Amino acid sequence: MLRPLRRPQVVIVGAGFGGLQAAKALASTPVNIVLVDTHNHHCFQPLLYQVATAALSPADVAWPIRAIVRAQKNVRVIMAQVTGVDVQARRVHTSEIDLPYDYLVLATGSTHSYFGHDDWAPFAPGLKHIADATEIRRRFLLAFERAEVVEDEAERTRLLTFVIVGGGATGVEMAGAIAEVARRTLRHDFRRIDPRKSRIILLEAGPRLLPSFPEHLSDYATRSLQSMGVQVELNRTVTGCDAQGVSLGGDRIEAATVVWAAGVVASPAAQWIGAEHDRAGRVKVNADLSVAGRPEIFAVGDTATIADRDGKPVPGIAPAAKQMGTYAGKVIAARVLGQTAPPPFAYRHLGELATIGRKSAVVKLGFFQLTGFLGWLFWSAIHIYFLIGLRNRFVVAVNWLWSYMTFQRGARLIGIAPGSLRSPSPPLRRGG
Amino acid sequence: MLRPLRRPQVVIVGAGFGGLQAAKALASTPVNIVLVDTHNHHCFQPLLYQVATAALSPADVAWPIRAIVRAQKNVRVIMAQVTGVDVQARRVHTSEIDLPYDYLVLATGSTHSYFGHDDWAPFAPGLKHIADATEIRRRFLLAFERAEVVEDEAERTRLLTFVIVGGGATGVEMAGAIAEVARRTLRHDFRRIDPRKSRIILLEAGPRLLPSFPEHLSDYATRSLQSMGVQVELNRTVTGCDAQGVSLGGDRIEAATVVWAAGVVASPAAQWIGAEHDRAGRVKVNADLSVAGRPEIFAVGDTATIADRDGKPVPGIAPAAKQMGTYAGKVIAARVLGQTAPPPFAYRHLGELATIGRKSAVVKLGFFQLTGFLGWLFWSAIHIYFLIGLRNRFVVAVNWLWSYMTFQRGARLIGIAPGSLRSPSPPLRRGG
Repeated sequence: MLRPLRRPQVVIVGAGFGGLQAAKALASTPVNIVLVDTHNHHCFQPLLYQVATAALSPADVAWPIRAIVRAQKNVRVIMAQVTGVDVQARRVHTSEIDLPYDYLVLATGSTHSYFGHDDWAPFAPGLKHIADATEIRRRFLLAFERAEVVEDEAERTRLLTFVIVGGGATGVEMAGAIAEVARRTLRHDFRRIDPRKSRIILLEAGPRLLPSFPEHLSDYATRSLQSMGVQVELNRTVTGCDAQGVSLGGDRIEAATVVWAAGVVASPAAQWIGAEHDRAGRVKVNADLSVAGRPEIFAVGDTATIADRDGKPVPGIAPAAKQMGTYAGKVIAARVLGQTAPPPFAYRHLGELATIGRKSAVVKLGFFQLTGFLGWLFWSAIHIYFLIGLRNRFVVAVNWLWSYMTFQRGARLIGIAPGSLRSPSPPLRRGG
Repeated sequence: MLRPLRRPQVVIVGAGFGGLQAAKALASTPVNIVLVDTHNHHCFQPLLYQVATAALSPADVAWPIRAIVRAQKNVRVIMAQVTGVDVQARRVHTSEIDLPYDYLVLATGSTHSYFGHDDWAPFAPGLKHIADATEIRRRFLLAFERAEVVEDEAERTRLLTFVIVGGGATGVEMAGAIAEVARRTLRHDFRRIDPRKSRIILLEAGPRLLPSFPEHLSDYATRSLQSMGVQVELNRTVTGCDAQGVSLGGDRIEAATVVWAAGVVASPAAQWIGAEHDRAGRVKVNADLSVAGRPEIFAVGDTATIADRDGKPVPGIAPAAKQMGTYAGKVIAARVLGQTAPPPFAYRHLGELATIGRKSAVVKLGFFQLTGFLGWLFWSAIHIYFLIGLRNRFVVAVNWLWSYMTFQRGARLIGIAPGSLRSPSPPLRRGG
């Protein structure tokens, strides 16, 4: 087919870590890029748990996509929901307009998976975007408010029980932060209840926390959480979730607040293009991240599954998504410019970090490992560095310093739904 | 009646400026205070328009009530909605529990009034609390997003038309801030539309803006807004509001975003106690701010109506609410301690301020008047000073400085409703 005398059209779906890097890699290539996202902002997911636990405001971990790509004149940003892809006609259908493409990059990310129990979702929200974080914050803070007024002892205990399902980085970070808020931040704020008596339970189905870390760091994380008053329960599988709590086989935990940090499933991108995918819905991609039989379509980040040089799957973390986004952009650039294709995608594993409360973290970067306060300092520096935009870095640093010195949290807001806008005293929305 | 051998119970409904001051005035009095609010946070309303226009985050202008009164051990905070008052039994009914009282302070504030047209509310939200501000922010930012993708010329014009109804301080501040965002912040962020071509229309029913200011300051505000590209329309009365725009008698403005800043009505507190009230629902109070025939019930701030020494009604602004709250607290303290009652309430008018965009303001404090940049500096200093809590002052100052230097705004988030939590790509919610 002769290439028409116009700039090739590149549609990138999703402005997460992968999509933004793909756009950036094409900055000096003569293409027209359309970057589509359902949100107007890029969300810095690694810090989302800090919004959920009232340490940071949503705007501290989110940045308008338009502002990020403002200077890149070959990018047009569209806020729309993708409804499907016509792979024959090479068009992306969205809620707003149709977008023709010559190259398509699918960078739609993942959401939390309830392993076939989607009915648990209302009782155990996960943590993937800003709205999830503010909803968890609302439930978590409201539980203390209700415990303060309720007369029934059992109900008060249930309100002061917080269950986090899943012992990966998000679960460990949530458990540590919730323990800290209960034991320190809220300590003197109630008259009838003692927030320090809250039960914070971290459930992990496997034999240890942070399974991707070396075993001694898992043990360190368990001990650190226990010293903060978190009850760590290993080898425990949730078999039911309802408005009153969670079931574990024959056991039962009555809890008003349950947070889901147990599993992820890819977005429906594989279905849009009818591509082969794994059990988690991730598109199987070739060594150049293109989709089998569709060399013009690429999948990156959590949308794709590919093995690294050791045959292990590339992990679903931000650095991997960024590397894949950059690589897909380079492949497209090479094709557009008629240059040699880059060598097959090779994932470079930089390491992993997880923080445990306000003074401890576990860090593993190759042979380099850190724990405790030094780990926490390293973790803070890395995260502030990667936050997009000078001002966010500065505001986040100020907020952390302030929280660290005073034990206070700056964003303790219980949101009221916009639906109740006009009422001078909207009814209390109940958590759980 | 013999006073029982227990501490008198003081119930304060509302933790706005009036309610918080009443609690503070009773800090060293041997009473048990219950402070009830539907929200868990005190909202600094004078800066709410900055949240609505994406300059500040909700947490920058809101502060947990519990944190504010933490050190005052005679205060118990309850998050609940008041549903009524039994004045005979002296009990406040709430959504959570009943609260007996010996003294009751009603500090429930006001909400926006549509002058009998409550059906306009969904199309023209007002600005009284955090949820209002984030809803207006969502509509306002979403209008630009939709304008970028829409094909129809008339619809694009409608999406880029912003109407602010009401030329008081809030209306003037909103109009200035919206003009600034459209003309400066978003200037380079779109590819198909030019946000600078947005129409921002400020409608005022009376003959001049800021009617409580001296006339030359009103004129100054009009000229300043006009130089920023705001179309100021005086003597224009809105006769209809719908999903497409506003009607003004025979005239019509097609606009996707309408903000209501035209009038206020008191909360239903007067109905709870069956008290005499004015047309705006404000309780008529005695010279000691108590309710006629109910010496144990006080109404303060926007909940009350009373004349100042010149016979003019005390204005519904924060300093007035604070003075009334403090006064009511002192009256209660005197009665509890068996001391002489303080002299009748006398309002001290300190002055008024309104800002116009990022470099101008009008200030009137007695004979002292300021306009332009000096006015803006004064306005900023005053507002940062009054923000509760050291950290809020600092973060707000940082945000302002950053906005001022870069024209950027830190909180450009379009919220997605918690209801759409689980979907990896929630449907676009349409504004207007």
